[in-house]
Amino acid sequence: MPRPEPTVRLRGKLWVELGGKNALTEAGADLLQQIEATGSLSQAAKNLRFAYRRAWLLIDAMNKNWPQPLVTTATGGKRGGGTRVTEYGQKVLRAYRDLQLQLEHLLDVATGEWWGNDE
Amino acid sequence: MPRPEPTVRLRGKLWVELGGKNALTEAGADLLQQIEATGSLSQAAKNLRFAYRRAWLLIDAMNKNWPQPLVTTATGGKRGGGTRVTEYGQKVLRAYRDLQLQLEHLLDVATGEWWGNDE
Repeated sequence: MPRPEPTVRLRGKLWVELGGKNALTEAGADLLQQIEATGSLSQAAKNLRFAYRRAWLLIDAMNKNWPQPLVTTATGGKRGGGTRVTEYGQKVLRAYRDLQLQLEHLLDVATGEWWGNDE
Repeated sequence: MPRPEPTVRLRGKLWVELGGKNALTEAGADLLQQIEATGSLSQAAKNLRFAYRRAWLLIDAMNKNWPQPLVTTATGGKRGGGTRVTEYGQKVLRAYRDLQLQLEHLLDVATGEWWGNDE
């Protein structure tokens, strides 16, 4: 008697390398998205349960690795600064999310075909 | 003056989960392929520079996680055993490699479109 079939799930992960370095990972994309939503690096880090230092280092590395900064920090003003995602950063984030959707679609289709064909 | 554009490379990684556990990763697929090629777990491990113990544990876990074994070990006989990939294991490996090719294609296309659109 065959063992019962467990639930198959095809999984995948995407990242972007620039000049051989990791320039955007899932964590980086999530951080950009939270900065976009909150306008604050510390709030973004909190929402993702990242240590502030980790979030800061990640943003610093991304800003150095891409040809243009993905994030800028304003200084001064009434609310004393705030962090925002640049237009360039938004473009990069959208392109990454779009690619993730394409990957998810690929995995969904493949899961159906693969396991469906299996006796 | 803009910084020079570094070389963008979109990267991805695939794995299969069964009942919530990692059932096939890149390392597992590479190991299956080397076992198929060499008929020997120790030779397969050597070719991939995996410790024998790591290779053995990986195969053991895969055999337990899939509904049918991916690998069998023959005992006795003139050459005293040998390890081979089952038909089921071959099918799983082919399905994984096929999916990897699809992912590579997706990444190739996306790399061209993404960076090509960028001014």
